[in-house]
Formats: sequence, structure tokens, C-alpha cells
Amino acid sequence: MHPRLAAIEETLLMGPGPSCVPPQVYEAIAASTIGHMDPRFVEVMDEVKVFLQKLLNTSNKLTIPMSGTGSAGMETCFVNLVDPGDSVLVLMNGVFGKRMADVATRLGAKVDTLEFEWGTPVIVDDVKKKLDSAKYTIVAIVHAETSTGVCNPVAEVGSLLAGTDSLYLVDTVTSLGGIPVEMDAWGIDALYSGTQKCLSCPPGLAPVSFSEKALGKLGSRKNKVPNWYLDLTMITQYWEGRKRVYHHTAPVNMIYALHQALALILDEGLENVYRRHMENHQALAAGLEEMGLSLLVKPESRLPMLNAVCIPEDVDDAGVRSALLNEHRIEIGAGLGPLAGKVWRIGLMGHTARRESVDRLCDALKSVLN
Amino acid sequence: MHPRLAAIEETLLMGPGPSCVPPQVYEAIAASTIGHMDPRFVEVMDEVKVFLQKLLNTSNKLTIPMSGTGSAGMETCFVNLVDPGDSVLVLMNGVFGKRMADVATRLGAKVDTLEFEWGTPVIVDDVKKKLDSAKYTIVAIVHAETSTGVCNPVAEVGSLLAGTDSLYLVDTVTSLGGIPVEMDAWGIDALYSGTQKCLSCPPGLAPVSFSEKALGKLGSRKNKVPNWYLDLTMITQYWEGRKRVYHHTAPVNMIYALHQALALILDEGLENVYRRHMENHQALAAGLEEMGLSLLVKPESRLPMLNAVCIPEDVDDAGVRSALLNEHRIEIGAGLGPLAGKVWRIGLMGHTARRESVDRLCDALKSVLN
Repeated sequence: MHPRLAAIEETLLMGPGPSCVPPQVYEAIAASTIGHMDPRFVEVMDEVKVFLQKLLNTSNKLTIPMSGTGSAGMETCFVNLVDPGDSVLVLMNGVFGKRMADVATRLGAKVDTLEFEWGTPVIVDDVKKKLDSAKYTIVAIVHAETSTGVCNPVAEVGSLLAGTDSLYLVDTVTSLGGIPVEMDAWGIDALYSGTQKCLSCPPGLAPVSFSEKALGKLGSRKNKVPNWYLDLTMITQYWEGRKRVYHHTAPVNMIYALHQALALILDEGLENVYRRHMENHQALAAGLEEMGLSLLVKPESRLPMLNAVCIPEDVDDAGVRSALLNEHRIEIGAGLGPLAGKVWRIGLMGHTARRESVDRLCDALKSVLN
Repeated sequence: MHPRLAAIEETLLMGPGPSCVPPQVYEAIAASTIGHMDPRFVEVMDEVKVFLQKLLNTSNKLTIPMSGTGSAGMETCFVNLVDPGDSVLVLMNGVFGKRMADVATRLGAKVDTLEFEWGTPVIVDDVKKKLDSAKYTIVAIVHAETSTGVCNPVAEVGSLLAGTDSLYLVDTVTSLGGIPVEMDAWGIDALYSGTQKCLSCPPGLAPVSFSEKALGKLGSRKNKVPNWYLDLTMITQYWEGRKRVYHHTAPVNMIYALHQALALILDEGLENVYRRHMENHQALAAGLEEMGLSLLVKPESRLPMLNAVCIPEDVDDAGVRSALLNEHRIEIGAGLGPLAGKVWRIGLMGHTARRESVDRLCDALKSVLN
């Protein structure tokens, strides 16, 4: 007999995602699988769309979870909107901005980047100058840069683009469900997220939303979308309308889980959820400071759900992370790229963002560092 | 409070997938989420690879589940192997062959097709003539054509390609776990499948496997794979080797479920599993015949796990399917494309392939048709 996994010991997930999953979501993911064309499943799909619209503060009809992880959401936005030769400006201050530039380049876009130091936010005045000097089909930014813990000024950049022909593409993988996301008010045209961060659902789906302007670009494509699996012109025929046209078999149980995760957030109330993230972030920052540890990002640009902690010079990065995982069953994240070995990334996402998580981590970290 | 889904009533899934999920797999999918870089999760990944290799009868190192449904597997195989201008021959006798041609065309391949009547298999002699007349970079075929219930001669076509430069690409979405798949012996270079058919795991993952020859083609690409999310040159760095390089967050709980589903199949024994599919198919065919119903496909080309049943002229297609679903909680599938309204597709996949499913369906169908 092969081993059973149900015995996997629970871990306090305080890395950059996945985050802790509430019991109701585990219950939902294990609910009885039904067919992807079953009218009862269509009801679940319709509710998921409404839940996502509420969370994104959007009236966009095309607001659905794609059948892949957050990076599939990034791929979806670019592959549906980029025609070869289109100009794309990526505002870049971390791994995920860099990934955007890679994705768009592979699709034949002329990619320009405006780079900012890792750990600091995008500077709106610099963006303004850049936009004054050239026109772009798409301008892309990461709301919550998971690699550094920086919150970028998505609303302000959106104001610069208002009234222009450019499409505004925003990564909200780590922000959604932890800080406000105002898709319509901020003028966002294409947005993607992931389930395993502040939504506290296991990884596997990527919510995306397209504005009417983005749909216009999609509708005026000269060629078919060069990615059958993520082609929104076909996928929307399954997710919308009376006649649900089969495209691919939807990941039914993952969508159950997302449905429940979103319901929990809406039941708690968005303001309460955001306040909970902020209060626990402040408690964590205070606890870390008390230990003599400092955060990479200046207070005014810090994300509540992703805290990049500078590793003191004499401390063994991997050793501390292993000790936390093996002795305390707490996962924190390593640094990425130029920040590898220099920071730990401590997540306070969704169900993880509770006072007991903060206390458990601070106690464990004290014991490991001593 | 938003509604809970755990109360969704169980359905006997006898359509073209998803199939019924065994209780152990529900238990596994709800096991505690851990990090995608956690050494315990790496162990699960390593076991999944070995389980898949056994099921595919392959020693291919690159044998992994992609983070998307079966169609993402199709996209993965083509997008990694097709360079623009490559010639691709698709052997086509149903929806999924047609989909292959669409996917490859979008990627810039010169696609040629050899078509056979829906409901009949690919004819090996015709393929031989075609291959004598032209050379192809890739030759693609669907093993079990889910839209018609036909089993295609994958081994025989493989023999024709032995020793040539062509890559042999095979869709085993519906066949894998229900009838033998001999990846290495049949000379298959690239193969994809899905979890929601005979593996009896919820939809959401796409097992793929690449031969050394396929890896050679991948390694000699002139340009980056034009799909970041499905780029195997990067994904293998996460799935293989000592240093697991983060690519995207793996769908942890779906991989738990696949692990358990594969373990159940291997525990039962492949020969036993295939026999169970065949015996229940024979019982179903007999039961349907007794009712005066006939199967679309001739006995020698029938798939055990997907039975296309001709709808009698005076019978209301949708009405019967709705009655089965609403009154008997049994799902069967509609016909696709030219077979819409002409056939029902009755699945006997994985955990569904049990005598009690056959009996329940035959009883229900009798009562609905009378």
C-alpha cells in the first residue's frame, strides 16, 4: 500500500504563499465533484463571479478564475492583449515585474521597462516623464511586489493613464484580499490574482478581470490568441450567457474552494479583513523591532501581508528557516534574486493574518536566534 | 452568511469526465496545505513522478503533472515542441484531434491533417501513404477520442515513425488508467493526459511526459518557449534536481489528490484496473443492447471507458439527460460537433467503472425511456 497524505502535519504558513487555509475551505475542496456542465455547478460559477466582482470593486462582466495558478493569470492578461509589435511598458521593482517583461517579450511585444530599486516603490513622477516621452499599448505594474514587500502606487499611475489609449494591466496576486483593490476607480483594464495568498485558498486558480476597453482590444485582434488554453474569447462562452459552451473541463473542486474562500471574506466584511491584516502587520513589525530586526521597506510603502525582514549579518539564513520549519512547523520565505540571503519574507496573508500567528512566529524566532 | 458547498449532493458521474472520485482522494485533496518548497512536498512530487512513470510505462525523466487541466497538457506539448514553420501532421477523427490542429496552428506550425470519419479509427495504411509522401516534424494522434468513443491504433502508427526524425505526440487524456499506455514501447515522444478521467481525481492537472528525443528538440529551440507558464525548460528546474528552482506556486492540494489517485491504481494493479474497465464496458454494452440501443463504434475499435450510444430517432436527447441528472443523479454526456443530438456519451472511467454504476444507469435509463 502506498502512503496516505492525510497525515501531513499542519504547518503555520508564513511565507510568501501559500497561506493557511481555513477549515471551511478544506471542507469545500473535498465536496462531491459534479460535472462542469451541471446546472448546479453553473450556479457556483455565477456566484464566484459575483464574489470576485465585489472583492475587486468592479462591474466588469469578464471577471472569472482561470484554470491555473497566479502566473497563468499573468500569462492570460498578456497573451490575450498583446499583438506582436505592441509596445508594453513594465514598471519594475522586483521579481514579478521582471516576470511580466519576460512574458510580454516572449509574445512578441516591444517591451520597455522603467526600473526602481528593489525594496522601494515605483515613483509616480518618473512614470509621468516616461509616459510624456512615449506612447504604450499596455502599461503594467505589480500592486504588491511579493519579492520585496513593497506596495506600488497603482491608483496614482492609473490617474496618469486616464483618458489615454493605453491599457492598464495590474498584478494583484498578493494584494487581493489583504488591502483594498479598486479595479474600476483606479482605471485598471486587466487584472490578475492568485488564490493562495490573501484569499487563503490552496494554489491552483487565477482570478482575472477585463474592462470593456480591454475587451475592445481583444475583439480587434488580427489573429487568434496564440494560446488555446487561455483564450478568453472562447473561455467567456463557457463562463457567460445562457448556453455554456464547453471549452476545457473546469477544475471543479478548486472552484468550490475559491467559492468558499471568497464567501468567508465577504462574510467577515472587506473593511474588517483589511483592518485585521494591518493590525497584525503592525504587531509583527513591533515584535521584530523588539528583537532588533528591521524591515527592508520604509513604513509608508510597506505591505501588511508581506514583510521583508533584513537578515542580520552573522545569522545563517537557511539554518534559521529550516529550524523554524522543522522544530516549530512554521514556514517563512527566502529572499529572491538580489535579495537572496539578505531578507526573509514573512507572510501575513488571509487566514494566517491572526494574532496567534504573530505571537507563535515571534516566540519561535526568538528561540531560534538565541 | 453565504451558502456552504459541502452539501452538494453526490452524482454518479458517467459522462466524458469528470469521473467519480474515491473517498481516499477527497481525503487527500483536503490534507493540510504545505509550502511548494517544503521538503515534505518535494517528496510528494518525487513520488508522483515515479507513479506516473509506472502508469505510462516510461523511463522518461521528464514525467510530471502540469498545473492546468488536460487541455493545458495539449498546449504544453505543442508550445514546447513547435518552432514557427514546423510541419505538423494531425490524425483527426474527432473533437480532440481538431483541437490539436487549432492549438498547433496558433503557434505558427504548418498544420496538415489526415481525416477519418467520426466514430471510426485512424487507418494505419492511410497514415503510411501520407508519411511516404511528406516529412513532418511532429505527428499527433489522440489515443482515446473522447468525442466518439474510438480507440486509435497508437502502437501501429508509432511503428511507422520508428527510426524517423519525426516526433510522435499522443493525447492520452481519456485512455490513461483505463487501457494500457506503453509510452516507450510505442515510441511516443510527447504525451499528455488529464486527471479527471480514468485517474478519478478531480480536474485540474495534466500529466505530461517527454522522451529524450523530444527534450532534444526543446533544447535546440531558436527562441524561448512563447509561453512562460508552460515553459518546460524552467518547470523542470523545479521538478528535478537537488536545487528546486521556484517557477510558479504548484497546486499543492491537487497534487496531493493525484498522488493518492495514482497510488490507488498502482495498489489495485494495472492489469486488474484494465480488466475492471473492460468487464464493466462489456456489461454496459450488453445492458444497452438489451434495451435495443446500439453503440456508435464497431466492437473492435471501442473504448471501454467511453461509450457513444446512438440516440433513437424518437427520443428527446436533452430531456433524457436532464431526467437522468435530476431524477436519478446520474450524469451522462451529450454528443459534440457533428454528433450533437445523435449520441450520448456514457463514461466508465476509473472509480466509476464498477458494476453498480452499470446497473444503476441501465435501470435509470430504462425507467426514463419508458
